Amino acid sequence: MSQKTTDRRTFLKRGAAIAGGLTAAAAKPTSAQLADPEGFIRGSEELVAYGKRSRFETGHRIPHGGRASPDTFGLDFHIATPLQESVGVITPSSLHYVGTTRGAFVPDIDPEKHRLMIHGMVDNPLVFTLEELKRLPSVTRQHFIECAGNRSNRRHTNVQQTHGMTSNAEWTGVLLSTLLEEAGVHADADWVVAEGVEEVKGASSIPMTKAMDDVMICYGMNGEAVRPQQGYPLRLLAPGFEGIFNVKWLRRIKVVDQYYMTYNDYGHLARSPVNAALGYQIGPKSVITFPSGSQQLPGAGFYEISGLAWSGGGRVSRVEISTDGGASWTTANIRGEAQPMAHTRFSYEWTWDGSPCELQSRCIDEIGQVQPSRAEALAFFSTDGEPVRFVPGQDNSIQPWRVDSDGSVHNAIT
Amino acid sequence: MSQKTTDRRTFLKRGAAIAGGLTAAAAKPTSAQLADPEGFIRGSEELVAYGKRSRFETGHRIPHGGRASPDTFGLDFHIATPLQESVGVITPSSLHYVGTTRGAFVPDIDPEKHRLMIHGMVDNPLVFTLEELKRLPSVTRQHFIECAGNRSNRRHTNVQQTHGMTSNAEWTGVLLSTLLEEAGVHADADWVVAEGVEEVKGASSIPMTKAMDDVMICYGMNGEAVRPQQGYPLRLLAPGFEGIFNVKWLRRIKVVDQYYMTYNDYGHLARSPVNAALGYQIGPKSVITFPSGSQQLPGAGFYEISGLAWSGGGRVSRVEISTDGGASWTTANIRGEAQPMAHTRFSYEWTWDGSPCELQSRCIDEIGQVQPSRAEALAFFSTDGEPVRFVPGQDNSIQPWRVDSDGSVHNAIT
Repeated sequence: MSQKTTDRRTFLKRGAAIAGGLTAAAAKPTSAQLADPEGFIRGSEELVAYGKRSRFETGHRIPHGGRASPDTFGLDFHIATPLQESVGVITPSSLHYVGTTRGAFVPDIDPEKHRLMIHGMVDNPLVFTLEELKRLPSVTRQHFIECAGNRSNRRHTNVQQTHGMTSNAEWTGVLLSTLLEEAGVHADADWVVAEGVEEVKGASSIPMTKAMDDVMICYGMNGEAVRPQQGYPLRLLAPGFEGIFNVKWLRRIKVVDQYYMTYNDYGHLARSPVNAALGYQIGPKSVITFPSGSQQLPGAGFYEISGLAWSGGGRVSRVEISTDGGASWTTANIRGEAQPMAHTRFSYEWTWDGSPCELQSRCIDEIGQVQPSRAEALAFFSTDGEPVRFVPGQDNSIQPWRVDSDGSVHNAIT
Repeated sequence: MSQKTTDRRTFLKRGAAIAGGLTAAAAKPTSAQLADPEGFIRGSEELVAYGKRSRFETGHRIPHGGRASPDTFGLDFHIATPLQESVGVITPSSLHYVGTTRGAFVPDIDPEKHRLMIHGMVDNPLVFTLEELKRLPSVTRQHFIECAGNRSNRRHTNVQQTHGMTSNAEWTGVLLSTLLEEAGVHADADWVVAEGVEEVKGASSIPMTKAMDDVMICYGMNGEAVRPQQGYPLRLLAPGFEGIFNVKWLRRIKVVDQYYMTYNDYGHLARSPVNAALGYQIGPKSVITFPSGSQQLPGAGFYEISGLAWSGGGRVSRVEISTDGGASWTTANIRGEAQPMAHTRFSYEWTWDGSPCELQSRCIDEIGQVQPSRAEALAFFSTDGEPVRFVPGQDNSIQPWRVDSDGSVHNAIT
């Protein structure tokens, strides 16, 4: 603790002395040291109505895994969030990751015509307009969503590639339990099937215990309507479950008495319903976003290491940092209060001595789950005693970043 | 409490029975009751990079008070957030209110060239690049900003006009205290003057106690860079203080030993420095956003009343609702955990019997301040024993909305 205080109190001097990175003003500073703007942006009707980001900000989403590009939109269409530029915990809606295996064509839905049906094993089937849903008791919660295929490999060079298939937003909507209670669920109904409006109907079987717990029917995202790429005007949110369960363009929920195999279940083919349900939950996970792969440190000195942690199991209770490749660990700072099943920003005050080193982070959640090392994850998925070379399931293993003596940062997965 | 539970359990039946507002599906619902999309939005390079909202969403900011329009941008340029469409607590950056008395021309700043200078009564004057600032220990916090002129009058018809000059965002940046500690503030320095890059230099004198407490130098807003209209690439945030102190396009902070009169101080001309500093803080305030002026209830039945509460004095500790014009009050629900000096979403489950009524909300903050009625605020500002007709200072008085028997909602200020 005293070490941390010392680092903080002296970081400017140290930074300036070792790296020359931080600039002292002249003894009598003058405005000549300050820059004038390039010019002025004139107001316009469009800019008054709905503002834009600076022309100097060019961070953008990229097709994930190189399998989709703007010129070759296929059925497998995944685009990843630029986590290397993230600050705080909210992902801007314009940069929220998108994943679908049903094509890049987003339904263009008129909210006045859209309906949500609750039917199947219920006493009173119900059909709602958007206006009706918005009259009902609602909740606002921050939650992450993550694609189960969000995994790092040694070919990835930056954190957008290794971890960009997760994002975090403030969601507003009605609890599914509110609707199910009003419809009156039959005693022997154990599952719900949620269906979206898509060219190939997206659908997911969700256990009734989850449906009655914290599943939301969302019409709001980051203070405005859910975006089209995220399911406008309605999406289902199953907090902490794999991304594919968070059905977009939601229009129908059927209450049933068994697990139904759907187009979404290609990842769960070999599982029993019970095992599948258990496996839906995202494990404890974290990643350092600064410094991360492809970034460049200007030299030795003080840096704040910063990153994101999350877990499908609940709140992040602790994040640990290693600057020596996992040999020793120290507790990081958590910014604000961690929310359940939400990205949590952590930071760590670090003075880099200029030597090569390896940075890692690991997440511990409120139910005691600890993010595994990559070796542990590979061993877990081994079937014949030999570690596998790739994590075939959900990969929540620790991401190592190597800092070379020239300040360049690299993916350290081998 | 039992009344609330009853309302919730029966709202659909009651709504359907009284208002016909909520639609029951047929006994055997068919997909004919569901709508298909209008078509599909094809992916494009632009939409992959940075997504957009639906073409059906047209909520937008409006010039405040009718004194500025897209065709007549003047020095007094205020644009207001559409709170009537707000959900949750985050204001989308594109809809964040903008206030300036220095013209509608937004500085177009190259972040690579921009510098922040700390000088005046310090041991070590400092000049920072953006990259250097981002290496320093940082914080992420939700805070509201509100223009001191955000006041309701009887000519206003909706909540965007009465209260749209406040917004709430997730801000990320460096505490000013971190920079001041490194610069080494002289013992007799009591104030800082913060200056922005503008045609007329925006500047504000801020007490040193506030500067060393929770003032932030922000580069991040809602997970990305601060927007140009909000001060890109750097703005000062003085949590809970009047909007004008939150200097945009920040480039200089001078440490001084007295209050300096600046262009920003037209609102504080008659005050002593001590009284001025005390008056900077926004009082406890709240407003119902649904149902609010110009909205239309489709009929009697169940509704969730929803609104926002905030205070410059700290966290919102309680919000109370009256549905009988202030005669009786009930505690509303607060969504999530209230953050200090941040918008807080409240809600209240209400069954409207179809009779004319008047809805009000009032905020109580963690230091015990209670939002005043309009009569109390007018009496407070009276100088001769007769209540004034308009609130001349900060107006944090209760906003009354009248619901007529036809379901129309009106501003009830007389």
